Amino acid sequence: MARNDERRAELADAGLTILATEGSRGLTHRAVDRMAGVPLGTTSNYFRDRAALVGGLVERIGQRIAPTEEFLASRANKPPTRELFTEYLQNIVDRLLAEPHVTLALFELRLESTRRPEVAEAISRWQREGFEADVGFNIAAGFPGRATEIALFHHAIDGLVLDQLTSPLLGETPTTVFVERLVEALLPRE
Amino acid sequence: MARNDERRAELADAGLTILATEGSRGLTHRAVDRMAGVPLGTTSNYFRDRAALVGGLVERIGQRIAPTEEFLASRANKPPTRELFTEYLQNIVDRLLAEPHVTLALFELRLESTRRPEVAEAISRWQREGFEADVGFNIAAGFPGRATEIALFHHAIDGLVLDQLTSPLLGETPTTVFVERLVEALLPRE
Repeated sequence: MARNDERRAELADAGLTILATEGSRGLTHRAVDRMAGVPLGTTSNYFRDRAALVGGLVERIGQRIAPTEEFLASRANKPPTRELFTEYLQNIVDRLLAEPHVTLALFELRLESTRRPEVAEAISRWQREGFEADVGFNIAAGFPGRATEIALFHHAIDGLVLDQLTSPLLGETPTTVFVERLVEALLPRE
Repeated sequence: MARNDERRAELADAGLTILATEGSRGLTHRAVDRMAGVPLGTTSNYFRDRAALVGGLVERIGQRIAPTEEFLASRANKPPTRELFTEYLQNIVDRLLAEPHVTLALFELRLESTRRPEVAEAISRWQREGFEADVGFNIAAGFPGRATEIALFHHAIDGLVLDQLTSPLLGETPTTVFVERLVEALLPRE
């Protein structure tokens, strides 16, 4: 990353930590300056208003929860089996749980989107693009699921991840059990 | 309700509205006094500290999203068909969506539970009791699902409801489509 992009990413990471640890009302340019340990005013230089700051956080969430290139490369051009689909889905769950601050920040922004139009705009555009990319990926990879199934997987994974990060209903059950059951049940059989 | 209980419920409703419209950091005894339009200090008389206030809100959420007696009575002792299970599940979704402030307040408390032990205690006990009641209800009514399936339904419904209350991935698709697909897929066939 260029120097400028690195600083933006650092500031966005600080903002995500604030969202996760203090909730959305804690998110101000000054709080980000303090959390990142930079001179007051720095965050305003990079993100001129709250809409720009939220946009920067959403972009950064996407970077931090993206699958690794190694993960994707090692599975490219494999036949679209149910086992492969399960691996992709489990990887999403693992990534979300490996970055609890990022995932909690995303839930905070989704709730905040019901109160602030600029958050709603940023987060809904990002979610819609991600969803369409997921549907496209599924078709390109040869998996049978379409929009309705992908939406059902999104709902189930969101609920599972929120459950795991708060107080799990079945704390002893590994997420693999839920993921395997979901694929078994929800992925159409051709 | 006795006069005292009515006042407690009014104050708790004001607290839920604050959680939904301002987020968890807006929840203070004074903010509840103001939202309920009662003299400052009233909320402290009914809920002596923040833990008591949160406990009162959680209890009130349970009251407001409970199924009606008419709904339950009209289905008691019916054979445990998949159609009946679907009706119960759809009723949960409909109740959660009919009370957006209550449902959003519940999500706020779940996120807040990662930051405050007193919230974690109140919400996790309530969730666990509700979950065990659901599993017991399922067995008593003769439905095939057990703990793992009920947890999967919880995850999926949480994700669906959060999606519907924020920016739906498939805004044109009625929730009945998702609920029917979930039951078709996740409820075991005996």
